[in-house]
Amino acid sequence: MLPDRAFFDQLADAAKAETLPRFRVGADVVNKETKGFDPVTEGDRAAEAAIRALITERFPEHGILGEEHGSVGLDREYVWVIDPIDGTRAFISGVPVWGTLIGLYHRGKAVMGLVDQPFTGERYFADGRQSSYRGPEGSRVLATRACANLADATLFTTSPHMFVGEGRARYEAVQDKVRLFRYGVDCYAYALLAAGHVDLVIESGLKAYDVGGLIPVIEQAGGVITAWDGGPAEMGGNIIAAGSRAVYEQAISILQG
Amino acid sequence: MLPDRAFFDQLADAAKAETLPRFRVGADVVNKETKGFDPVTEGDRAAEAAIRALITERFPEHGILGEEHGSVGLDREYVWVIDPIDGTRAFISGVPVWGTLIGLYHRGKAVMGLVDQPFTGERYFADGRQSSYRGPEGSRVLATRACANLADATLFTTSPHMFVGEGRARYEAVQDKVRLFRYGVDCYAYALLAAGHVDLVIESGLKAYDVGGLIPVIEQAGGVITAWDGGPAEMGGNIIAAGSRAVYEQAISILQG
Repeated sequence: MLPDRAFFDQLADAAKAETLPRFRVGADVVNKETKGFDPVTEGDRAAEAAIRALITERFPEHGILGEEHGSVGLDREYVWVIDPIDGTRAFISGVPVWGTLIGLYHRGKAVMGLVDQPFTGERYFADGRQSSYRGPEGSRVLATRACANLADATLFTTSPHMFVGEGRARYEAVQDKVRLFRYGVDCYAYALLAAGHVDLVIESGLKAYDVGGLIPVIEQAGGVITAWDGGPAEMGGNIIAAGSRAVYEQAISILQG
Repeated sequence: MLPDRAFFDQLADAAKAETLPRFRVGADVVNKETKGFDPVTEGDRAAEAAIRALITERFPEHGILGEEHGSVGLDREYVWVIDPIDGTRAFISGVPVWGTLIGLYHRGKAVMGLVDQPFTGERYFADGRQSSYRGPEGSRVLATRACANLADATLFTTSPHMFVGEGRARYEAVQDKVRLFRYGVDCYAYALLAAGHVDLVIESGLKAYDVGGLIPVIEQAGGVITAWDGGPAEMGGNIIAAGSRAVYEQAISILQG
């Protein structure tokens, strides 16, 4: 039995109860890595624990891949892929473009997914057939934008500093061709792509939990998301997402050199 | 007679009635410049017209400096400085970090100001004595964060591409020293600084209307905002804003070379 929307909402609500009260209140920030700055808030850990508890109770036969509390049963038919707070840097600096990402994989393919932004009250959800939105403007089915040319595209990436070596040069070759590019939007960029406001997102060095919840939302809104080599996005890595096949093909041909 | 909070709210509400219905609905985008991409939406123009009409009716003796509809009476004792949609690129790509900026100058000094983000429902207001916030979390008086060292600071700028030549090198010298830096937040970065979530904002090439509404919100929350040369920020240019005097002094000494 597959989960329904109500169950996804239950997971997102449980996460929100842990994240939102800690947003903008000087939550206790911990350095996860000794090199660089990768903060994890208490909210991150508590939200993942709350999501995992609900999944384990309802679907004990499913596996779970989480950011904070490790993995169980990754070889099972269904695996949940969770990032309780994607965009922790945004979270700790007060910018409401972080999100809770919850994906469900079936035999390695992302089939259902949810992106939640608790502060703005926006929720993007893919039910296996279509993507939909609920937020301050109401509810609607999502469709990506049919941008025909890279030269007309809006491109987002979290930071140009996420690209290294040859990857940076290839990213910049795409950036040089678009109409408008913008930094600093984390998972929210992919949600805006699914909603038809943005045409292209290119990122590098992502983990599975950074994209698992996003893949179905993009694909079921009519978009394309893969690795730069054209392979599946499900395990992360270098990722390209586009609202149209035309923009995808023009951009990936540049990324592949 | 000076305006009160109710009048500022009236201005912000009139602007919101023109901007928010056009947000995320594929508003008609016009290229204002032939070089580069500087979109202006209908909302931008309609919001400024609505604000100006209210000011002209209530304070006919005041001057107005606006982004879209030019200037009148800049030599008068009181001058309103208006940016109906600061962050038009954010606006057209669906990211709720744009804002309506309304400042009131008295003999060239910004004394009252307002920043409104209609989608998230956040309003930052400086009444001449203190800055306050209303939003989804409720209402509160704003205070900047007392960050003591640049090495612990969070730095925001809209894009590293806004800096040219020597300015870029000096900006990057500051960026290299902070704990966390982030791009892509427009006027929202200054509001977050006033609210104590961010310690430093550095930008370049701003117009008076890009900062006029922000200056009082930052100063009356305990922050500092000036040009890079230490002079007043009121006419725009290269701008530095900091939540604490310590971070301001460490950063500006680097910017001044």
